Amino acid sequence: MIGARALRIEDRVLLRGAGRFAADTQRAGELHMRVVRSPIAHGRIVSIDGTEALRLDGVTAVWTYADIADLPAIGFRLTPREELLPYRQPVLARSIVRYVGEPVAVVFAESSYLAEDAAELVDLEIEPLPAHLDPDAEPVDWVDAEQASWAAGHGENLPAQDSEASVFTIGYGDVDAAFSSGEGRVFTMDARIGRHTGVPMECRGLVAVYDEAEGQLIVDGAAKVPFWNREAIAAMNGLTPSRVVVRETHVGGGFGPRGELYPEDVLVTVAAMRLRAPIKWIEDRQEHLMATNHSRGQHHRLRALVDDDGYIRALDASFTLDQGAYVRTHGATVASLTASMLPGPYVIDNFRVTAHVRLTHKTPAGTYRSPGRYEGTFARERLIDTIAHGLGLSREEVRRRNFIGREQMPYERPIEAMGTHMVHDSGDYALLFDKAAERFGFSTIREIVSRRRAAGERVGFGFGYFVEKSGIGPSEGARVVIDDAGGVTVICGASSVGQGVDTVLAQVVAEVLDVPHDTIRVVRGRTDQFQYGRGAFATRLAVMAGSAALNAATALRDKAFRVAAAELAVSVEQLRIRGGVVEVEGSEQGLSLGQIAGLLDPLRANDLKEEPGLSADGWFHTDHMTYPYGLHAALVRIDEATGRLEVERFMVAYDVGRALNPTLVEGQIAGGVAQGLGGALYEEFLYAPDGTPLCTTFMDYLIPTSAEVPDVETLVTEDAPSPLNPLGVKGAGEGGTTAVAAAIASAVDDALQQPGAIDAVPITPGTLHRLLHQTTTQHLTTKE
Amino acid sequence: MIGARALRIEDRVLLRGAGRFAADTQRAGELHMRVVRSPIAHGRIVSIDGTEALRLDGVTAVWTYADIADLPAIGFRLTPREELLPYRQPVLARSIVRYVGEPVAVVFAESSYLAEDAAELVDLEIEPLPAHLDPDAEPVDWVDAEQASWAAGHGENLPAQDSEASVFTIGYGDVDAAFSSGEGRVFTMDARIGRHTGVPMECRGLVAVYDEAEGQLIVDGAAKVPFWNREAIAAMNGLTPSRVVVRETHVGGGFGPRGELYPEDVLVTVAAMRLRAPIKWIEDRQEHLMATNHSRGQHHRLRALVDDDGYIRALDASFTLDQGAYVRTHGATVASLTASMLPGPYVIDNFRVTAHVRLTHKTPAGTYRSPGRYEGTFARERLIDTIAHGLGLSREEVRRRNFIGREQMPYERPIEAMGTHMVHDSGDYALLFDKAAERFGFSTIREIVSRRRAAGERVGFGFGYFVEKSGIGPSEGARVVIDDAGGVTVICGASSVGQGVDTVLAQVVAEVLDVPHDTIRVVRGRTDQFQYGRGAFATRLAVMAGSAALNAATALRDKAFRVAAAELAVSVEQLRIRGGVVEVEGSEQGLSLGQIAGLLDPLRANDLKEEPGLSADGWFHTDHMTYPYGLHAALVRIDEATGRLEVERFMVAYDVGRALNPTLVEGQIAGGVAQGLGGALYEEFLYAPDGTPLCTTFMDYLIPTSAEVPDVETLVTEDAPSPLNPLGVKGAGEGGTTAVAAAIASAVDDALQQPGAIDAVPITPGTLHRLLHQTTTQHLTTKE
Repeated sequence: MIGARALRIEDRVLLRGAGRFAADTQRAGELHMRVVRSPIAHGRIVSIDGTEALRLDGVTAVWTYADIADLPAIGFRLTPREELLPYRQPVLARSIVRYVGEPVAVVFAESSYLAEDAAELVDLEIEPLPAHLDPDAEPVDWVDAEQASWAAGHGENLPAQDSEASVFTIGYGDVDAAFSSGEGRVFTMDARIGRHTGVPMECRGLVAVYDEAEGQLIVDGAAKVPFWNREAIAAMNGLTPSRVVVRETHVGGGFGPRGELYPEDVLVTVAAMRLRAPIKWIEDRQEHLMATNHSRGQHHRLRALVDDDGYIRALDASFTLDQGAYVRTHGATVASLTASMLPGPYVIDNFRVTAHVRLTHKTPAGTYRSPGRYEGTFARERLIDTIAHGLGLSREEVRRRNFIGREQMPYERPIEAMGTHMVHDSGDYALLFDKAAERFGFSTIREIVSRRRAAGERVGFGFGYFVEKSGIGPSEGARVVIDDAGGVTVICGASSVGQGVDTVLAQVVAEVLDVPHDTIRVVRGRTDQFQYGRGAFATRLAVMAGSAALNAATALRDKAFRVAAAELAVSVEQLRIRGGVVEVEGSEQGLSLGQIAGLLDPLRANDLKEEPGLSADGWFHTDHMTYPYGLHAALVRIDEATGRLEVERFMVAYDVGRALNPTLVEGQIAGGVAQGLGGALYEEFLYAPDGTPLCTTFMDYLIPTSAEVPDVETLVTEDAPSPLNPLGVKGAGEGGTTAVAAAIASAVDDALQQPGAIDAVPITPGTLHRLLHQTTTQHLTTKE
Repeated sequence: MIGARALRIEDRVLLRGAGRFAADTQRAGELHMRVVRSPIAHGRIVSIDGTEALRLDGVTAVWTYADIADLPAIGFRLTPREELLPYRQPVLARSIVRYVGEPVAVVFAESSYLAEDAAELVDLEIEPLPAHLDPDAEPVDWVDAEQASWAAGHGENLPAQDSEASVFTIGYGDVDAAFSSGEGRVFTMDARIGRHTGVPMECRGLVAVYDEAEGQLIVDGAAKVPFWNREAIAAMNGLTPSRVVVRETHVGGGFGPRGELYPEDVLVTVAAMRLRAPIKWIEDRQEHLMATNHSRGQHHRLRALVDDDGYIRALDASFTLDQGAYVRTHGATVASLTASMLPGPYVIDNFRVTAHVRLTHKTPAGTYRSPGRYEGTFARERLIDTIAHGLGLSREEVRRRNFIGREQMPYERPIEAMGTHMVHDSGDYALLFDKAAERFGFSTIREIVSRRRAAGERVGFGFGYFVEKSGIGPSEGARVVIDDAGGVTVICGASSVGQGVDTVLAQVVAEVLDVPHDTIRVVRGRTDQFQYGRGAFATRLAVMAGSAALNAATALRDKAFRVAAAELAVSVEQLRIRGGVVEVEGSEQGLSLGQIAGLLDPLRANDLKEEPGLSADGWFHTDHMTYPYGLHAALVRIDEATGRLEVERFMVAYDVGRALNPTLVEGQIAGGVAQGLGGALYEEFLYAPDGTPLCTTFMDYLIPTSAEVPDVETLVTEDAPSPLNPLGVKGAGEGGTTAVAAAIASAVDDALQQPGAIDAVPITPGTLHRLLHQTTTQHLTTKE
């Protein structure tokens, strides 16, 4: 079963329309929550008056900051840096609003329609202040004396703060010495990645109820990191973690933003406790585009020292990250990952990068599929193309010369990534390039491009190479249980954001027990069913939960063998398992797993030699990540008249160590490419000068549809299994996204015949039209 | 904490009205089920027509047998005897109805009101047949040729059956030889116990939904034996057990009848699967009194051979049990327990008892608090009083002469009880008598009775001695879990029928971990939270779950000590636990349980030396029961004019081995006495000659109220801890009921000054009036 193109067991429910998403959770007597949001990007709260709203029949409560003043700001789940603490988001704004969409009040009513009407009756008086919107500008006072004094008037103690929340540098070697050696050529690259984000099909939503009979707060909806959310919700509500149950529902996409703990989530749970009613909140799309984490929004400045052979001797980089108005649960994760993953597949002897996390009066930002790598890969791969052009080498050649060699693996880069020491565990970067070139026919593509270009078409071919990371630890666990009728259940700490983790875990267990994978029930995302789970993020579950499930299933099989051996009076060595039956080799004798479970049923048997029940736990612990890698390549065509760009082919070669289910890997890649294309060509959150968001509907925020996304061609290889886990698996969740912008930009440069022309995404028809109708020379002059 | 009068942790919720009973479970879109019941005790189903009912707007379905023809009859949970199989109850009647109240059809509608209206529109044509109502009459054909032919016409294969479903004999020694020896005197006793039952304050109810998203059938409501019900419901619905979740709600009383699997429970779950809607069924009181298990209803005939010293040399007994129309989940449990527990605390060298399980056209019967012992104790203790009178010995003296002596313990009686070999594990029956006499002042009572009797009052004092059984195995398990904030959770296979099991388990764990018992959360009755549990019946949980919790908590403490020792670099021997903190003896050093849990948190720590999590499982296995024992004594007064009886004092001395919580033990005793008084004085299901039940409301079926129940005086002793479990505990659930009828009858005899006059319960004012106004001599003549 491992490696099989098995059908997704999740789909039996989803395809019949029987999935349960947050909005499907209905509770008798539920109240609907509606958030009143700031219409002003930056301003002083003069007054909030809910009187009119409360007059509506069926409106239960209107809360402002005063009603939840005891709640702390929302903390960091990942990468907590001390200096970021003052920038955490309060659950409701107190004296100052800092982005359009910031929650300032909240209404509870008997229907969602009524709640929405009531929210519009809440009277807000907010005195506008100038909005700070440019993260590239010099940092400004984020809290100045006047603001501090205003806040003090509202009982709030706001220390003076700078709009640069954090700045930090990592690296190794001696970059300054290298550059001052005078040897080699210096190349620079300036690269911008627009502000965009995951926009899952399903907006956020949560339903919470305090079950007084159970003494538990039950929270349905938040997928991704239910165990962390459980702990945070418990702390916010003054409960011990075991008094909170978080149960993820089905999700219409995760991608990073969804499932994190937001102000709305806290409000839902606190209201459930305090109003003693089930509270339901379902985000609408307009809210989603203003309230849910944005991402990307980086500006990189790279400077490389390259010797005559094209070998990069030093890389000196800095970037700004448009954090928006607050630092949310991800802390410094995006900045940190951007920095540590910037060198990618290349050796680079001396490396230094400085991250600037800067606040603006926009929606706060967090992670989005391939956080930091999408941005860093775009910047770095643009730089490599620039170097190639500058040295007169092919783009491929420069990459090959700088690759970490297969013989150098495992390759240690003396920096940290997500708190782990960075060691590229395995890989043959050049081999993957070879295989991709052959499979996709790069030389044929180049010929076709030449031919069509000669015929006057603006076509181009380009690519980007990347390294991903996956399998962050430290631990994940699973339990396999067989009931007396032979039913197999896997209970684990994993979560699902729709990626197919149930199927993959079922396959792993099916392999060990030799049962059909689609008879296995997988229980995950239930904090009352398993004690620990870190969550579905950072492409970690195939590695972590997969290995835990393997260990659990193996332990269970061993236990079944011991019991069967005793019952059948044979040795364990004589046994094998086939079709869920433990058989004596070369005999008719055998016991099904259900029968063995019966032998371990403490209500049936008296003298058990084992712990009761045919069940076993398995854990997998690690303190290193694993590093899959890949190549994206694109063939594009630009319409000279309109600047319209068509992606004619998009190709991904990806080495995942071991593909537990190639169909799922390919699906992950295809979906990832679609999202990468959004950021490369269409999606960007724009703001008016006063901070008013211009993209709050899908008429303004453009996501690619099936008309824009080409069939994604994939080559999944298994040339570099990870030595760090028993499955050899790396991860497949993000590699479809990572190098899309890089590859598209490279191809567009090629189509334009203007190397280095594309230094920003999204690449709009306007940009292309402008580039097509200016002189190439002039542009290159400004670049180098 | 063990032995403390700790407050019930259950009550925090219940006293605030925040309990969740079956009817409190509300599910969006639920359909309400109403059962159409036979108004005829015995008859042929000619036709059932739901057309009119289905015409009502909001009525979803009307089912008759044809709609659930694939379902088997409901099986036996306990004491399955092969010969009983043909007498199992079908889920809906097919061709013949056998009691008034038998489900013949079922209606599903959008409200309970509508469902009830619709049920009345279902047109039943049933051709009446004569009802067989007397279990003491000679057995009749239960299925005769004519019935078999009628059934065959409905496609039903009914073999010929007798109304005596089962007859079996157990015993030891040589009873016939003893009686034919010609030595000693023969005493006989004829004793009848009326048909009555538990009538909990809350009627039955169940809410089931097939959660397609989870792939599970969720069933809320059935307390008592959720794991067994889960397996049965799974089998009925063609699911593996892990696909069914049974969750007990709070219950307004259990007492035996409630929580068993009935036709209605099966219908609710099958409808949830087939109609794909939540199905709710709440029994009303009239239904309850016709549909839920009746109990008792026995007629004993005892014959004893007694030597001149009052020593019982042989007991030859037989009894009939009015089983009603079907044999339900209890199988032959009541008959079996009646037989095996009949000798009670007495040696009795030769013993034989024959049980006749006989069908009648009445509501089926099952267990009710102290099943078989209430009946058997009444019969046996009446016999002892008769012997005492016949030999001119005091009632106390005859008992003392026949007691199993303390020095004979453990005392093996070579018969089986509930499938276990019967060994009275410990006891000092005479000592308890001494202590009771002293505490309650028996000699003073006797003086007062003499004085008042001399003054013309009809007062009497009497008692009954009994042995109970408890702690049936084979196993029970518990898991103790500490969360990172130090919250303590006990998860176990136990169930609650309101007896306070949460409190007792919390006390046991609190004792080991030295934490306040009311900070502990107890999770039980949830088949998705623990893998096995046998249930709350037969007074088994203090012994079984209590010992399992003790073992789990001890294992957890040991684990905490190991981790703390390693962390603090001391030896385990230097550690102790105080207030939930593991402290180094004679130092300031210490780690709270929450901190130790943090050290075992696999998401925080990398190099665990133990299984992740501060949690531990504990099990307790046994293949013997334990035998508590007690004495009931009553002081009664009869109004000569009206026959009204007043229970002036009711006293219970009970040795429970060890009282985990004396307040709870006393509460169990008081409640048990109230129910015992009901059967002794008020409650009886009566039937008209055609089988129409005459007691279908509380106007006709009389349960004692607080006006009728005296303050129950209790003496709980711990003179005979059980050697069979680590707590030394026996059980307290049923001993308040066991000897009530015996003690009251003895006291009434004494008040009447007519030894042996009371040979049946309930003792009505009519009986007393009659006895008061007939000659004593005449009655005694008929007795011996």
